[in-house]
Amino acid sequence: MSGRHFLQIPGPTNVPDRVLRAMDFPTMDHRGPAFAAVGTKALEGMKSVFRTESTVVIYPASGTGAWEAALVNTLSAGDKVLMYETGHFATLWNHLAQRLGLQPEFIAGDWRHGADPVAIEERLRADSGHEIKAVCVVHNETSTGSVTQIPEIRRAIDAAGHPALLMVDTISSLASIDYRHDDWGVDVTVAGSQKGLMLPPGLSFNAISEKALAAAKTAGLPNAYWAWDAMAEPNAKGYFPYTPATNLLYGLVEAIDMLHEEGLENVFQRHQRHGAAARRAVRAWGLEVLCLEPRHYSGSLTAVLVPEGQSADAFRRTTLENFNMSLGNGLSKIADKVFRIGHLGDFNDLMLMGTLSGVEMGLELSGVPHRRGGVQAALDYLSGREQTSASAAE
Amino acid sequence: MSGRHFLQIPGPTNVPDRVLRAMDFPTMDHRGPAFAAVGTKALEGMKSVFRTESTVVIYPASGTGAWEAALVNTLSAGDKVLMYETGHFATLWNHLAQRLGLQPEFIAGDWRHGADPVAIEERLRADSGHEIKAVCVVHNETSTGSVTQIPEIRRAIDAAGHPALLMVDTISSLASIDYRHDDWGVDVTVAGSQKGLMLPPGLSFNAISEKALAAAKTAGLPNAYWAWDAMAEPNAKGYFPYTPATNLLYGLVEAIDMLHEEGLENVFQRHQRHGAAARRAVRAWGLEVLCLEPRHYSGSLTAVLVPEGQSADAFRRTTLENFNMSLGNGLSKIADKVFRIGHLGDFNDLMLMGTLSGVEMGLELSGVPHRRGGVQAALDYLSGREQTSASAAE
Amino acid sequence: MSGRHFLQIPGPTNVPDRVLRAMDFPTMDHRGPAFAAVGTKALEGMKSVFRTESTVVIYPASGTGAWEAALVNTLSAGDKVLMYETGHFATLWNHLAQRLGLQPEFIAGDWRHGADPVAIEERLRADSGHEIKAVCVVHNETSTGSVTQIPEIRRAIDAAGHPALLMVDTISSLASIDYRHDDWGVDVTVAGSQKGLMLPPGLSFNAISEKALAAAKTAGLPNAYWAWDAMAEPNAKGYFPYTPATNLLYGLVEAIDMLHEEGLENVFQRHQRHGAAARRAVRAWGLEVLCLEPRHYSGSLTAVLVPEGQSADAFRRTTLENFNMSLGNGLSKIADKVFRIGHLGDFNDLMLMGTLSGVEMGLELSGVPHRRGGVQAALDYLSGREQTSASAAE
Amino acid sequence: MSGRHFLQIPGPTNVPDRVLRAMDFPTMDHRGPAFAAVGTKALEGMKSVFRTESTVVIYPASGTGAWEAALVNTLSAGDKVLMYETGHFATLWNHLAQRLGLQPEFIAGDWRHGADPVAIEERLRADSGHEIKAVCVVHNETSTGSVTQIPEIRRAIDAAGHPALLMVDTISSLASIDYRHDDWGVDVTVAGSQKGLMLPPGLSFNAISEKALAAAKTAGLPNAYWAWDAMAEPNAKGYFPYTPATNLLYGLVEAIDMLHEEGLENVFQRHQRHGAAARRAVRAWGLEVLCLEPRHYSGSLTAVLVPEGQSADAFRRTTLENFNMSLGNGLSKIADKVFRIGHLGDFNDLMLMGTLSGVEMGLELSGVPHRRGGVQAALDYLSGREQTSASAAE
Repeated sequence: MSGRHFLQIPGPTNVPDRVLRAMDFPTMDHRGPAFAAVGTKALEGMKSVFRTESTVVIYPASGTGAWEAALVNTLSAGDKVLMYETGHFATLWNHLAQRLGLQPEFIAGDWRHGADPVAIEERLRADSGHEIKAVCVVHNETSTGSVTQIPEIRRAIDAAGHPALLMVDTISSLASIDYRHDDWGVDVTVAGSQKGLMLPPGLSFNAISEKALAAAKTAGLPNAYWAWDAMAEPNAKGYFPYTPATNLLYGLVEAIDMLHEEGLENVFQRHQRHGAAARRAVRAWGLEVLCLEPRHYSGSLTAVLVPEGQSADAFRRTTLENFNMSLGNGLSKIADKVFRIGHLGDFNDLMLMGTLSGVEMGLELSGVPHRRGGVQAALDYLSGREQTSASAAE
Repeated sequence: MSGRHFLQIPGPTNVPDRVLRAMDFPTMDHRGPAFAAVGTKALEGMKSVFRTESTVVIYPASGTGAWEAALVNTLSAGDKVLMYETGHFATLWNHLAQRLGLQPEFIAGDWRHGADPVAIEERLRADSGHEIKAVCVVHNETSTGSVTQIPEIRRAIDAAGHPALLMVDTISSLASIDYRHDDWGVDVTVAGSQKGLMLPPGLSFNAISEKALAAAKTAGLPNAYWAWDAMAEPNAKGYFPYTPATNLLYGLVEAIDMLHEEGLENVFQRHQRHGAAARRAVRAWGLEVLCLEPRHYSGSLTAVLVPEGQSADAFRRTTLENFNMSLGNGLSKIADKVFRIGHLGDFNDLMLMGTLSGVEMGLELSGVPHRRGGVQAALDYLSGREQTSASAAE
Repeated sequence: MSGRHFLQIPGPTNVPDRVLRAMDFPTMDHRGPAFAAVGTKALEGMKSVFRTESTVVIYPASGTGAWEAALVNTLSAGDKVLMYETGHFATLWNHLAQRLGLQPEFIAGDWRHGADPVAIEERLRADSGHEIKAVCVVHNETSTGSVTQIPEIRRAIDAAGHPALLMVDTISSLASIDYRHDDWGVDVTVAGSQKGLMLPPGLSFNAISEKALAAAKTAGLPNAYWAWDAMAEPNAKGYFPYTPATNLLYGLVEAIDMLHEEGLENVFQRHQRHGAAARRAVRAWGLEVLCLEPRHYSGSLTAVLVPEGQSADAFRRTTLENFNMSLGNGLSKIADKVFRIGHLGDFNDLMLMGTLSGVEMGLELSGVPHRRGGVQAALDYLSGREQTSASAAE
Repeated sequence: MSGRHFLQIPGPTNVPDRVLRAMDFPTMDHRGPAFAAVGTKALEGMKSVFRTESTVVIYPASGTGAWEAALVNTLSAGDKVLMYETGHFATLWNHLAQRLGLQPEFIAGDWRHGADPVAIEERLRADSGHEIKAVCVVHNETSTGSVTQIPEIRRAIDAAGHPALLMVDTISSLASIDYRHDDWGVDVTVAGSQKGLMLPPGLSFNAISEKALAAAKTAGLPNAYWAWDAMAEPNAKGYFPYTPATNLLYGLVEAIDMLHEEGLENVFQRHQRHGAAARRAVRAWGLEVLCLEPRHYSGSLTAVLVPEGQSADAFRRTTLENFNMSLGNGLSKIADKVFRIGHLGDFNDLMLMGTLSGVEMGLELSGVPHRRGGVQAALDYLSGREQTSASAAE
């Protein structure tokens, strides 16, 4: 198929040429003097992206590994963990905790909202013995496009006077949606390379508070690859305790530079704007955004419900075969009922317009009932024309 | 600016990753045994693209060089040449002929049509002494988006019983718009790498008939770099008489493979379809396509007149600064009155939709009077929805 | 510094352009139909490299992760494991087993030989209760350049009639030194991407026998990221249970193609030949090869002892600063006493000669006592001249 | 064949990864605002390399084109030109002048020296009518490895009181051997991209004195593509009169940065040192350097005579097939009698040692009579060991 593929799943995202080209340099000696600059830039740069003064570790691993790292470093066999069912990835984290021998408690959710701070506060208040050692939430649930307001969760924990660690998965939000590890009092933040960081998959991250580091000293499931304690000494000089994924680190350094050249605030606003445009398109088509709560809307992706009786996967196949565009599928509970439009990472207005055009044409070709005009609605929003009319309140 | 640049000038075009990556291999010994395979594939492959069984030469040069080559190999000082003013590039070729000491005669045109076979036939009939040695026309005039029907020109020459050579510039049509060097009786075809061939600029080509080769033996301005006669012997084995542009040749071989994988007929249809979609957008905006004659419409680009009093260049600046898209400018006579949308090369429906969205948003932002709905019209056409309504005859 | 860096540590190795360029393509949808071909080629290709008909899993992780995977999938807390101290990496594996809550027993070695099958057989015979669940050895000890003969270890286990699993680290031998997972009766083979496989670091592998798969069903430390059981179903179709390192997989597929184009047997012979040449150079310099036993000599690397009182690290710094070459350092016990010459991966005679020249010049510049002529000795060997003289018995 | 190819012809040279990767970025709008920075950096950067304050033009063409440009811009049909037969490329330039309708007078040379200033002065003195319009010499004759001392030629012209223009081909010397367009009073310098500039072929250059620019106003063969006059206006803003070879320009900008990072003086010294090392090897082998005069020795390449009765080409085939190294062949008069070792461009000591090792092993394998020890001699020189012995006077 001619032309560029539109990779509009909510990650991996379209990797910019600068990052791919940076990765296309020869591998170097990871113990040599020249490497230290790369390692240091990567580690320091990630602190600036997490907005933390504390500790960041980088794993040659995908995001799932960073989830595991967060748990095995801080928790012990049989520990209780409070999790919240925002969607598929929250569920997978829950399963992972079970596999590791923890006792996760999973507050049920409807996959159409962020995590509910009230329910969390309630549960923590009831835990007077402080058996719950950690509260784990997903910042931006990639399977649904719903954002949990992390400061609310922090306040819920504090209001309950509970000492549990707060762990947050930012895999599909970091560098796309405003996030502040230190200001928001998060203990472990989990992230991956292949979304807002604009890299291919293969790196993942923990940002770690002092409190979490302290917990790691006294607790922790058996662990080696994920061990935080082995990182500190070599990391201080820009090195790693085992062979790092050198070429992905080259790309990471370049990606961090790009983020700062654009400015993180601008990056976040760009994502918000594209989310708003995408939702206007969805509504104009007469379809339903999966996320029900405007304050939980995501700047990273928009999950869309297809009408009852329609197959989201058949529609996705049509867009792939006819328009060379990959859209995200509905996962588990919402399989075939939802498609997801990724609008995160290295992206811009015209790429979004191409994407939404592919959706509208795909709806037409696959016979999904809809109204014309979603692309026009997004275009009116992006060009500022909408503001002159009264109707476009979100 | 985030995301991919939309390079929607009518060339250089968006170079596919496969071609860039092919060029990113180490340079090799251009006299060594391994090079012969590259040279042979490039030369034979270009024959298949020109649709000729005769001779092709490849220059490390841009398209202007291939124009010069066509003239200096076949013509002598003071020779008369008949040219046709389809637009800016026809005019440049005319100037080039003058600089080289030829006597071009330039049939005036209005820059809104292809070359007129009737005028050419008339002029040739009047040349009973056969002083005119060559007829030179531009297949797809890049400055206007008007296509000359080459078979008509061939028939005009034949009808006049005139022995002049037929030379055709296909710089912005080859590998985008149907072209047949042998079937259409062309003597010298001129082409460049940076348009339908999907390469960066730096290579240019002549396809040469037996008749032109014969002319080169008895005539010819002083020449060395462009000399056809020096090419034959080394080319037969896949080599070149002087150092070729090795890495661009790597890319050429890859690009030719891509064209044949898609199929030249499919490539041409894709370009026709995108031209048709672009013109629907233009009309829906209430703007005017520069090319006045449907049979001269171009699949490579669409030149659009902005309303009287508006600045096409100010509009183009707006799309560049706001939407990271380069559009083509109006050249010389039509400077600032016209913008050009390139839709050629490695391109697809969603890239076109992004492009047209950028135009519509740019028109809005720069205050060029227009109607909404151009993007929607293109989308309806591309998705096949338009066919169910009666109105869309082009 | 001008010219190419000579990356002559024993891994990461010099990544060939074909592999780097393959990795420089856009990331794709790891759940889409096009990805299945990549995943399947990678998994099947790795079977051909491991020479197994059984199961291979691929981790987005470095080699250390694949060590961990081998242990956590098959062993339970407190299990006894028999390990052999061939050098630094065997020691690290031992530490890792300890961290994971296993009880490794570490047979002491002198870092100048491969593992001793007699000692292993003896220890296993003594374990009449079969408390030892696994025997873990390093095929090619990267820190010393000593190769353990795996078939001897297999025979030792069999001779003892012991049911322990046999686990082998081939991180610096796979695709460099002959290795046969099935024929040699290995249960878990551990490998990484950045040595003989000619990739950057970031992928690691387990090849798994039926017996090990069976053990994984009934035993296993808590694990999730490393879980073999979660791999089977998605792997069967070319997919992975979590996001794979897409671009490294592109490179892996290319590297496997390159290995088969050269032919694995030829690859092994090339490495043997370069090891033999390097040792000739070392002896001609009057220096000592660390590995004492000719049948344990390594085709991947040559570790060299510097004379008493000399600093290997000062010498290495001299070669880096003057000759743009990285050599491997001595690790832990042999720090500063040894330097290591990597001659594995994408390598050839002239790269080796450049490497050895850098060593000889570095010895000269840093004042390490030595004789001239090492480079000449290697050259005589590689050019076949040596064979005409009688003296070159190894 | 495994490992890196050794491209040791005297150009094209080994292109550094930085340059290849710079070329691997998307083509841009050559008329857009972002391009101006690229064009300006390229033009200004080339002035710094030519060491001129005057004018530089850049052609999308190989070096032959820049030869033609030098002649057609400044000379008229029938003009006399004085040339000097330093070797094959001087001969080709002579032929080119003939083809263009000039009257070159060719002072015979023996292909083993640079141009003789005495002969040139004599001939110019005899030309009392000043019919000779230009003196054309090759700075570093690529076919022989002999350097003409340009200041001597300048003095010869001045001593004869002759107004002829001085034109110098620096295709294989620029950015390798000290060269100063302004200080040495050169009128037109000709250069290409694929040697010391470390780029693939496809760009060529003229540096032009005020005197040459003035000549171009009143004289000049018919020309268009090569026209200097059309360059001035667009070049002043960083643009070009026709489509430039965008991606090669990206590479050029990177290469110029690399040259200045190393420092031109260091670059020249590096080349001198490698030439000296190569000649030591040649003498130790008992072979003969083609260039007879030490002050004409080349830092770019060393041409070596094989013993009478031996085939240089058979030897070169042996090194290519066995050692993956390309050496330069003997051209025309010296075909099969000479091989050429390129040691220019992005190069370093260990690459040279690999190269010389390939030569010594190739001599052995192909049965060319020689003594062992050339590699050792070069190594002794490069490591500074030689200086302690008395014998090494060159």
